[in-house]
Amino acid sequence: MTALDNHTFLRALLRQRLDYTPVWIMRQAGRYLPEYRATRARAGSFLDLCRNPELACEVTLQPLDRFPLDAAILFSDILTIPDAMGLGLYFTEGEGPRFERPIRAAADVQRLAVPDMEDELSYVMDTVGLVRRELAGRVPLIGFAGSPWTLAVYMIEGGGTKSFARSKALLFDHPELMHVLLTKLAAAVTDYLDAQVARGAQALMIFDTWGGVLTPRDYQAFSLDYMTRIVAGLTREAEGRQVPVILFTKGGGRWLDRMAESGCDALGVDWTQNLADARRLVNDRVALQGNLDPGILYASPARIREEVGRVLASYGQGSGHIFNLGHGIHPDVEPDHVAALVDAVHTLSPAFHEATAPDTSHPTGEK
Amino acid sequence: MTALDNHTFLRALLRQRLDYTPVWIMRQAGRYLPEYRATRARAGSFLDLCRNPELACEVTLQPLDRFPLDAAILFSDILTIPDAMGLGLYFTEGEGPRFERPIRAAADVQRLAVPDMEDELSYVMDTVGLVRRELAGRVPLIGFAGSPWTLAVYMIEGGGTKSFARSKALLFDHPELMHVLLTKLAAAVTDYLDAQVARGAQALMIFDTWGGVLTPRDYQAFSLDYMTRIVAGLTREAEGRQVPVILFTKGGGRWLDRMAESGCDALGVDWTQNLADARRLVNDRVALQGNLDPGILYASPARIREEVGRVLASYGQGSGHIFNLGHGIHPDVEPDHVAALVDAVHTLSPAFHEATAPDTSHPTGEK
Repeated sequence: MTALDNHTFLRALLRQRLDYTPVWIMRQAGRYLPEYRATRARAGSFLDLCRNPELACEVTLQPLDRFPLDAAILFSDILTIPDAMGLGLYFTEGEGPRFERPIRAAADVQRLAVPDMEDELSYVMDTVGLVRRELAGRVPLIGFAGSPWTLAVYMIEGGGTKSFARSKALLFDHPELMHVLLTKLAAAVTDYLDAQVARGAQALMIFDTWGGVLTPRDYQAFSLDYMTRIVAGLTREAEGRQVPVILFTKGGGRWLDRMAESGCDALGVDWTQNLADARRLVNDRVALQGNLDPGILYASPARIREEVGRVLASYGQGSGHIFNLGHGIHPDVEPDHVAALVDAVHTLSPAFHEATAPDTSHPTGEK
Repeated sequence: MTALDNHTFLRALLRQRLDYTPVWIMRQAGRYLPEYRATRARAGSFLDLCRNPELACEVTLQPLDRFPLDAAILFSDILTIPDAMGLGLYFTEGEGPRFERPIRAAADVQRLAVPDMEDELSYVMDTVGLVRRELAGRVPLIGFAGSPWTLAVYMIEGGGTKSFARSKALLFDHPELMHVLLTKLAAAVTDYLDAQVARGAQALMIFDTWGGVLTPRDYQAFSLDYMTRIVAGLTREAEGRQVPVILFTKGGGRWLDRMAESGCDALGVDWTQNLADARRLVNDRVALQGNLDPGILYASPARIREEVGRVLASYGQGSGHIFNLGHGIHPDVEPDHVAALVDAVHTLSPAFHEATAPDTSHPTGEK
C-alpha cells in the first residue's frame, strides 16, 4: 500500500518525538458538515450510508478536505457486529439505534455466532480498503469497534437506555450468561479489528460508551477485562509497523490507571479531568488522547484558541499527546470553529515539543 | 414542633455514634409506587401535584408508610425557583421540563429578581410545614434545592439538553454575565433553603445535576464556588440543633476532596466510586451518602441484599455513612425490591457500628 506522508499521529500514539501535536476529532465525519448532510441525503438512511462503501468513503474523507487533520477515522457504526449476528439493526428518527430481535433469553445468547468478516461485514472491510486507497498516504486511517460491554448493553436493551434495566438485571442475576455473551463479542471484535487492519487500518480504537455506568468492580469484570483480552488477541502488526490501540471509556476517567495496564498504547480522556492529572495517573505508560470540552466549540474562535492552549499546557512538554475533543463533536457546531481548533493545535503545539532531544531513529515502529 | 423519634439520619450526617446505618432513597416518593401514580392522577399534572401542599405532603409520606426509611424528603422540583423568577415552567410528556421564557439576552439576566419565598414560593413552604406536622417526629425532613449552575443551565437552554450549547457559549464567551446570573441564583437558593428550615426542614440537600459536565476548573468557578457561598450564607441552626447540608454533584466523584472543603456536612457519592476510596479522599471530614448502583434494584432480593452488604463493607466501620442509591430510583423498579434494600441495610449494618466506643453525649447537636 502507499507510503504514509504524515506519521505524526502514529508517532504520538507510540510516544515518539514530534514537532507538533497531532489532532483529529471524534465524529469528524458527521452532521456538522453540510457536505456530510448532502451525501447522507443521497444515500438515504444513516444505515444505507454505512453500508455503501463509496459513500462511506466519501464522508470519511470530507473533513480532511476541509481541515489539515492528522488522522482519518472509518465512517461506520459500532452496532455493525450485533447486526451481522442477526439482531436486525435499524434507526428511528430521534430515538437512535434499535434492534428488531434483541437478546431476551439464554437461548438467544447461545445461538449467537461470530460473523464472517468478509461476508456479513464485507461492506465495512470494503470501505476500509477504499478509504485507505483514496487517502493515498495523506494521513493514517483509524479503524474502530464498540467494546463488548457496550455492544452487549445495546443487544440486551434493544436500543438506547437510561435505566439499563435489562442489562443490569442480567449482569446481577445471571453473570455467567453475561460472560458467555461478552466472550463471544470479544472474539467478534478481535476478528473485526484484525480484518480492518488486514484491509488497511493503521491504528485502532475501542469505544466503551457504557463502561462508565458500572461500579469499579463491575467495570473491571464486565468491560475492562474483555477489552484487555481483545488487545492481547489482536495481531497488532501490519505492513512492518506496530498497529497502536486506543481505549476510550466514556466517564471512565477514574480508571485510567487500570486501563493503562490493558496493553493498549493510548487512552481517550474526557474533559472532566486535567490532562496533567491523567498523565500522572498513567505515569507516561501510554499516550493520552483528548480532551477539549466539546462545548467550547460553541464559543468564539478566539476563546477556542485560548482553551486549546490550556489543554496543550495541561499535557505539558513532550510527546504522547493526541489532541481531540473529550467527546464526539455536536452536530450543531460551526465548521469554522473546527478550523480554529485545528489551526490552534498546529500553531500553538510546537512550543511543547521543543525541549525534547533530537531523535535520529527511523519512523514509527518500522522494522 | 414535635420532638424527633428517630435521630439516626441526623446523627449520621454529623458523624455521631449510631447503632445502625440510616437509609433513604433519592426519588423515594415517585413513580415506582402505585399510590404515587394514583395521587398524581388525582392532582392532574406533575406541576399541579408540586403546587398542591396537601397532595405533595401525601406523596412525601407514602414511601414512609411502606418502608421503615430513616428520612423523608420534600416532594417538589428543583425548577420552582426559576419558575418563581418568571420563566414559566411547564412539562411536556417524555421531554421533561421546559421554560416559556428562557434566558436569551443580558437583559433577561439583569431583570431577574430573587423571588419572595412566602409569596411566589409559598406553596413549597406550606408543603414543608404540612409534611413536618404530619410526620409527627417519625423521621427528619430533608429540604432541597438545585445548585445555581444546574438552575442556570435549564434557564439558558430552556429545558433539558444533551449539548449544553447555549450555556457553554455563555460561560465561555460571557463569563461575567454567567457570574451575575449565578450570584442571583445563589442568593435565591440561600433564601429558599433558609425558608424551608424556618418551616421545619431539618436537613438540606443541594442537587448539582449538571456540575459533572464541566472541566475541573469550570466546576470550581461556576458550580462549587456558588454552592460554597450558599453553605456559608445559610442560617444552619434551627430548634436548637445544627441543620446539616448535603452536596451532590452528579458525576462529580473526582472532586469529592474539593467538595469536602465547602463547609457542608455530607457528600452524595454515585456508584462509580468505592466508598472506601471516597472516604479516604475526604479523610472523614464529612459524612458520605450513597452509593448502591440503582440498577441492582432490577436484580433479585437475594442479590440486592448481597450488594447492600458490599456497600456497607466498602464504607467500613464507624458512623458517617447514610445509605442511599448512587442516583434517583428508576420508575420501573418493583416496590418489593426497595423493601429488600431497606431491610438489608437495617439488618446488616449494626455489625459496622459495634466497634465504636459507647457514646454518652446528648442527641445530635442539641444545645
